[in-house]
Amino acid sequence: MPDKVNIAAALASFDETWSPRIAAEVDDFQVKLTKLEGDFVWHHHDDADELFWVLEGRLLMRFRDRDDVWLEPGELLVIPRGVEHQPSAPGPCSVALLERAGVVNTGSAGGERTTAPKPLDP
Amino acid sequence: MPDKVNIAAALASFDETWSPRIAAEVDDFQVKLTKLEGDFVWHHHDDADELFWVLEGRLLMRFRDRDDVWLEPGELLVIPRGVEHQPSAPGPCSVALLERAGVVNTGSAGGERTTAPKPLDP
Repeated sequence: MPDKVNIAAALASFDETWSPRIAAEVDDFQVKLTKLEGDFVWHHHDDADELFWVLEGRLLMRFRDRDDVWLEPGELLVIPRGVEHQPSAPGPCSVALLERAGVVNTGSAGGERTTAPKPLDP
Repeated sequence: MPDKVNIAAALASFDETWSPRIAAEVDDFQVKLTKLEGDFVWHHHDDADELFWVLEGRLLMRFRDRDDVWLEPGELLVIPRGVEHQPSAPGPCSVALLERAGVVNTGSAGGERTTAPKPLDP
């Protein structure tokens, strides 16, 4: 059985931004911890919903056809499949992502910021 | 698109223990918020993993064949399918549960504490 995960300790174990770490696997879903700062690429996911749960800092989720949404620590937002979005953090920000394993971070956009999630350091 | 959820406000919206509220749906998964106090029934889930993420208070997860695990706020634990467990909270405790929609709270045990998750109050 996997050990428990202390989220603060897990976040303290890496500094890299926009590079998700797999904190937990639940059936075919993953909880990934990610540090963000600045703008990510506009993208959507054709066949997967995506949940953002802000842990530290503030996250602005921009949309094409609806109002942007600010997320504070302790707030979560589901981005339904197909909805184009751009995560943006004005300062250091840590989030938990919940989504199906295999969902690619840049979704429809691809490009140089595409990266596979990494395991947490032991 | 669903609105963002403020977890503290969502937890403040109900007092009932052992009665999960659906905070978010992500594909066929759900994030459920639950308040716990005292012992739950021993049970397992035949075909579903279950993630406990402690938000407030302390949770003791008891197992038949391995050491019990204490979880503090900001700690999470995955209970793999088939593993018998008993959640127990010595005082008021709030957790986020992450599991596939349709997973029954009492799993293999059934009985009077079986309950369907409810929507969050608007």
